[in-house]
Amino acid sequence: MGMIGGGKGALIGAVHRTSADITGDIELVAGAFSSDANASRAFGVDLGLAPNRAYGSFAEMLEREASLPEDERIQCVSIVTPNDSHADAACAALAAGFHVICDKPLAGHLEDALRIEKAVANSGLLFGLTHPYTGHPLAIEAREQIAAGEIGDIRRVTVSYLQDWLSREEDTKASKQAIWRSDPARSGESGAFADIGTHAFHLVEFMTGLNITEVAAELRTVVPGRTIDDDGAAMFHLANGASGVLSASQVCSGALNALRIEIYGDVGSIFWAQESPNSMTIKLRGQPDQVLRPGSNAAYLSELTIAACRTPGGHPKGYLEAFANLYAGFARAVRNYPAHGDTGCASVEDGVAGMRFIRAALISSRNQSAWTRLDGVST
Amino acid sequence: MGMIGGGKGALIGAVHRTSADITGDIELVAGAFSSDANASRAFGVDLGLAPNRAYGSFAEMLEREASLPEDERIQCVSIVTPNDSHADAACAALAAGFHVICDKPLAGHLEDALRIEKAVANSGLLFGLTHPYTGHPLAIEAREQIAAGEIGDIRRVTVSYLQDWLSREEDTKASKQAIWRSDPARSGESGAFADIGTHAFHLVEFMTGLNITEVAAELRTVVPGRTIDDDGAAMFHLANGASGVLSASQVCSGALNALRIEIYGDVGSIFWAQESPNSMTIKLRGQPDQVLRPGSNAAYLSELTIAACRTPGGHPKGYLEAFANLYAGFARAVRNYPAHGDTGCASVEDGVAGMRFIRAALISSRNQSAWTRLDGVST
Amino acid sequence: MGMIGGGKGALIGAVHRTSADITGDIELVAGAFSSDANASRAFGVDLGLAPNRAYGSFAEMLEREASLPEDERIQCVSIVTPNDSHADAACAALAAGFHVICDKPLAGHLEDALRIEKAVANSGLLFGLTHPYTGHPLAIEAREQIAAGEIGDIRRVTVSYLQDWLSREEDTKASKQAIWRSDPARSGESGAFADIGTHAFHLVEFMTGLNITEVAAELRTVVPGRTIDDDGAAMFHLANGASGVLSASQVCSGALNALRIEIYGDVGSIFWAQESPNSMTIKLRGQPDQVLRPGSNAAYLSELTIAACRTPGGHPKGYLEAFANLYAGFARAVRNYPAHGDTGCASVEDGVAGMRFIRAALISSRNQSAWTRLDGVST
Amino acid sequence: MGMIGGGKGALIGAVHRTSADITGDIELVAGAFSSDANASRAFGVDLGLAPNRAYGSFAEMLEREASLPEDERIQCVSIVTPNDSHADAACAALAAGFHVICDKPLAGHLEDALRIEKAVANSGLLFGLTHPYTGHPLAIEAREQIAAGEIGDIRRVTVSYLQDWLSREEDTKASKQAIWRSDPARSGESGAFADIGTHAFHLVEFMTGLNITEVAAELRTVVPGRTIDDDGAAMFHLANGASGVLSASQVCSGALNALRIEIYGDVGSIFWAQESPNSMTIKLRGQPDQVLRPGSNAAYLSELTIAACRTPGGHPKGYLEAFANLYAGFARAVRNYPAHGDTGCASVEDGVAGMRFIRAALISSRNQSAWTRLDGVST
Repeated sequence: MGMIGGGKGALIGAVHRTSADITGDIELVAGAFSSDANASRAFGVDLGLAPNRAYGSFAEMLEREASLPEDERIQCVSIVTPNDSHADAACAALAAGFHVICDKPLAGHLEDALRIEKAVANSGLLFGLTHPYTGHPLAIEAREQIAAGEIGDIRRVTVSYLQDWLSREEDTKASKQAIWRSDPARSGESGAFADIGTHAFHLVEFMTGLNITEVAAELRTVVPGRTIDDDGAAMFHLANGASGVLSASQVCSGALNALRIEIYGDVGSIFWAQESPNSMTIKLRGQPDQVLRPGSNAAYLSELTIAACRTPGGHPKGYLEAFANLYAGFARAVRNYPAHGDTGCASVEDGVAGMRFIRAALISSRNQSAWTRLDGVST
Repeated sequence: MGMIGGGKGALIGAVHRTSADITGDIELVAGAFSSDANASRAFGVDLGLAPNRAYGSFAEMLEREASLPEDERIQCVSIVTPNDSHADAACAALAAGFHVICDKPLAGHLEDALRIEKAVANSGLLFGLTHPYTGHPLAIEAREQIAAGEIGDIRRVTVSYLQDWLSREEDTKASKQAIWRSDPARSGESGAFADIGTHAFHLVEFMTGLNITEVAAELRTVVPGRTIDDDGAAMFHLANGASGVLSASQVCSGALNALRIEIYGDVGSIFWAQESPNSMTIKLRGQPDQVLRPGSNAAYLSELTIAACRTPGGHPKGYLEAFANLYAGFARAVRNYPAHGDTGCASVEDGVAGMRFIRAALISSRNQSAWTRLDGVST
Repeated sequence: MGMIGGGKGALIGAVHRTSADITGDIELVAGAFSSDANASRAFGVDLGLAPNRAYGSFAEMLEREASLPEDERIQCVSIVTPNDSHADAACAALAAGFHVICDKPLAGHLEDALRIEKAVANSGLLFGLTHPYTGHPLAIEAREQIAAGEIGDIRRVTVSYLQDWLSREEDTKASKQAIWRSDPARSGESGAFADIGTHAFHLVEFMTGLNITEVAAELRTVVPGRTIDDDGAAMFHLANGASGVLSASQVCSGALNALRIEIYGDVGSIFWAQESPNSMTIKLRGQPDQVLRPGSNAAYLSELTIAACRTPGGHPKGYLEAFANLYAGFARAVRNYPAHGDTGCASVEDGVAGMRFIRAALISSRNQSAWTRLDGVST
Repeated sequence: MGMIGGGKGALIGAVHRTSADITGDIELVAGAFSSDANASRAFGVDLGLAPNRAYGSFAEMLEREASLPEDERIQCVSIVTPNDSHADAACAALAAGFHVICDKPLAGHLEDALRIEKAVANSGLLFGLTHPYTGHPLAIEAREQIAAGEIGDIRRVTVSYLQDWLSREEDTKASKQAIWRSDPARSGESGAFADIGTHAFHLVEFMTGLNITEVAAELRTVVPGRTIDDDGAAMFHLANGASGVLSASQVCSGALNALRIEIYGDVGSIFWAQESPNSMTIKLRGQPDQVLRPGSNAAYLSELTIAACRTPGGHPKGYLEAFANLYAGFARAVRNYPAHGDTGCASVEDGVAGMRFIRAALISSRNQSAWTRLDGVST
């Protein structure tokens, strides 16, 4: 694997590398980690890469690697740059013949996302988008239980993803990622809704198996001096007519990384929170609540859930393991290529849907929260 | 005290009576419990009333009691009838010179609510509306902490009140209260939003000390055969510009009586849930979470919170004690009358605000969730 | 009902009175609340008793009440004095022909407890000991589930009751009850083990349906200046051969009223904590955890549990309601007397067992924690 | 690194390997995974080792590796065999000049443990024992807070480690590790107390900074057909005079991997449970509870705690990350050798203490639970 982005001090790049390590299946052998060529090469060497594969730019990496013999070159590229450069990096990597695993959101703008979608289709290669919360065994279990009808027809969903790391004016400049995420030129058309709103959006679609069809949204910029949304909420409709509310904010003081979801059906309901990923509650009307726990030996879980567990019940699984489940799935798919099996990741279509969600929320918000269809947004 | 409504099998009437008992300050000595005069008298005798004060109708009760010597007659009336008859009963009781404590929502329709508001003003008597969840010590503590600025300026609120007791078609006819609450002629203009949405609405205003000024709402009738809302959600704005989402539903299977609130400020946030009323979490950015617990000996709580505790810390307080705190406050206010002190209950103005909330939500919902101001709703 | 003890500032007396009020079945009409005759009478009048039934001493109360016509006099006596006077008060009340409901522990010394046991037998009257934690619906449910074999044969029990209100030297004199509970002359042979250890002991026997047969204990006095145990632990055996550990302490800083129990069987296990009485967890091997919640409408609970609920699911029940369930049971038994039905309370035999537990723990502790049988303790 | 043990199907070997991977600092390059030479070599190749470093026995590995040039050979050996072979493997590895990291308990018998202790001293090399639960950031935080006096002088400790995977007769033969752990010839003098009781023992000493000096214990064999303890409990004393109870069992149905600890001081108390490692509660008398959460950005945590976090707050850390913290510490110590810094692991002395605990518990148990000092056990 080669990496694009994720240089010194970048949080998410380190997370991708550790996750790949955990799989035991993926080796990072090349990279272009920074737009500064010297910094990029130096950081690659720091990471233990062979100096001639610590590249100065991603263009250089793609060109050189593509010229190596098949059994020596990288098989896939991991893209962990700011949103605005996903499209160029992904399209170039696909054009060079490499499978791509890419951090979310898919791009800075819907138009770029559609460009990636087309490039994936043209290349016939594998593409995975990393929404790591869907790598938790119990997030998979929620999807499986809902698909099996355990809670009946979905009626109402409440999802929220709240943080506080941008809750003050001084936070806007406090870290590399705060700077680029608050800058429309690099983050793209949205701030909080792009960064974490899309996680909440995708989790709803992932668990319910239903598309979000329209939203009535309000995006706001709460902290003075910012030019991009840092807080917002939306009502939404699912394809089956169910209704929901979604909140996403990075200015809710006291919230760390509070992604939570509640899904209510006509038979029962499901509760899961990213911060306590090792329990999921199912409430069926007129029965005791059930609390499920992940474990490689928990026979009451679905096969897919069990396959996502590295240890028996009672051994807590964390964020990095969930993320590693995406990389493990992607490595498996790469191995099985040219078959197009499950990559363990979100698909490029999921990524485009997320970008349509952002665009629709922005349009609705500018239009007094009028209901806005995702499939109707103009590009 | 005399009671209007709350006959055989009525849940809420029994709750009011036990709550009054817990105070040790209030004695039920008269009542008109049913629209059927014989049933009313028989039930009063069953409850241990003197037969001549177990009345056949509330008109009879008010007339006879008013004619008794001052130290023998009732001092106040508790109204626990279906919503549609609150206005007639309350206005008559006030006209007869009795203070009134009344179950929520204030009335079936905003117009009736305004009629009660006028009658209270004209009478100079006390009026209390029972939103019992504000009687919990920690709900009071949330209000006091927010008023003291502990979490800073409010930015975002999430509140929901979800139940499942009307989630199936057969539930509509399953009990007396299911029948009248599902019947627009008796419940009034709204179902779920009137019954429980107003609790959520009031809890937000009670804790934050801010009015909800406008809503973008969607009310729905999910279960076939019903002619009134049983589910809905709204985005809302508070007077200080903060934003929030409110969900209220009686068709969310697996939810018992799930009233929960989260309030986020620019310093910290507060979490409280009615189903676990004996803990409240305060999260201040960059600090450990704090979990508060009620107790007559918990010196870190506000004086008002401590006064609402009958036992020391570690002795769980329940729903009936919270309800009794409303009655205890009302009894204290009656004792201090003609002073108009705190009744421990919501005011008639709070009740009118709740009715404006219902009306605005209905108008918004009919108007594609357009933002609708509460103070502008036409009557 | 008449009351003995529970004067001004006494915590437990007020709890008994409110609990009796909640039942709606019991009226306090007489009392001797203090050993100071004037204080006793004044306090009775403050409580709203007729002045001639606010007595100066319990002897006076018993004599006068016994001389009243049967339909005017009290039917039962509630004893809420310090432990050392339980025996005299109870024996006198029984001798005067009144049923007795008495606070725990049964007495200050085992010998006094045996005296009460004999008096109960001789009188043929009803006797109830108030271990209020067994009045919680889910404590009853635990007993019923275990009796029905849901968790199989009991193998191991962990129970603890920890508090901190006596954790400092100055606490010993900080309140009326701190003074007498720390004074062997009034508390009896034990401090913490008598006050709260017996609650833990009884809860084990109540839930498991098994007697504790022997203990290996260590009682300690941790806070300087005290002459009675304020902390301790024991290993114990149940009649079926199961094993357990019990901790009881009033010097564990940070613990409010932390009574918790875990019962493990060969099929599953049960968890319940007094401070969160509205949920109980059942864990069966290889299955999701089940969380049970009390409610008058929760059909999955036993009939006895449902009967102990005043409100539907989702309406939290508290300490006072649990205590009231004991009084409600006792009132029912008094009504059905001379039948000897369930009093809802612990029996005099349970109380004697608790005193044997204290005695055995003290003997074991003095004997290097040697295993000591409860049925063999010398009096 | 080279590994001894941990062949096909061994749970703990795979855990050690993934943990080492997570550090990014350690590479597994050699191994002897099974007592069957062919199986050992085949499994090594499966793991991706160079065929000539997939050895047939640990003796072979130690000999060959020692003969390689210093910059090619392994630097340390990880021992993950059944308890009975720890001593031979560890002594041989040390004799061959390799640092050793070894799974717990230190050995099958105290005598073997003392042999390892002597070999470590003679070699001057590094030795780390893996009690992974002390690798959790909040376990470290508990130690730091207690050392800083936050909860005052320790008075009482409750610790338990309960599982159910051996709760039935058929479990004894259900897996490789069930077989050897139930076999005194391979597990050593104890079953449950050795396997998990030592974890509980070490966690107490680790967090409190105090030695356990004596125990009054009862070990039992609950499931028929077993010849080794599968359940037990003990009262214990700490060096400062504090008292505690410890339960350890593998036959408590419904318990997965339930290691929990509560430590009470004269100022406050601390609660932590391995199954929810991402929160720790501190209760100071008369104050709200504090709930701490791990995060690389949580400034209220100690430096050592923060150093043990790979991700910011709100990203749950799991069992494998805790285990990896031990390996990361060991790798750091190896790098700094010949300095003898913190290995992140338990020391050989801790391991000997654990073996003394087992021996003392067995002696006490055979002696009617008589108090037995750890430093006095005969070997």
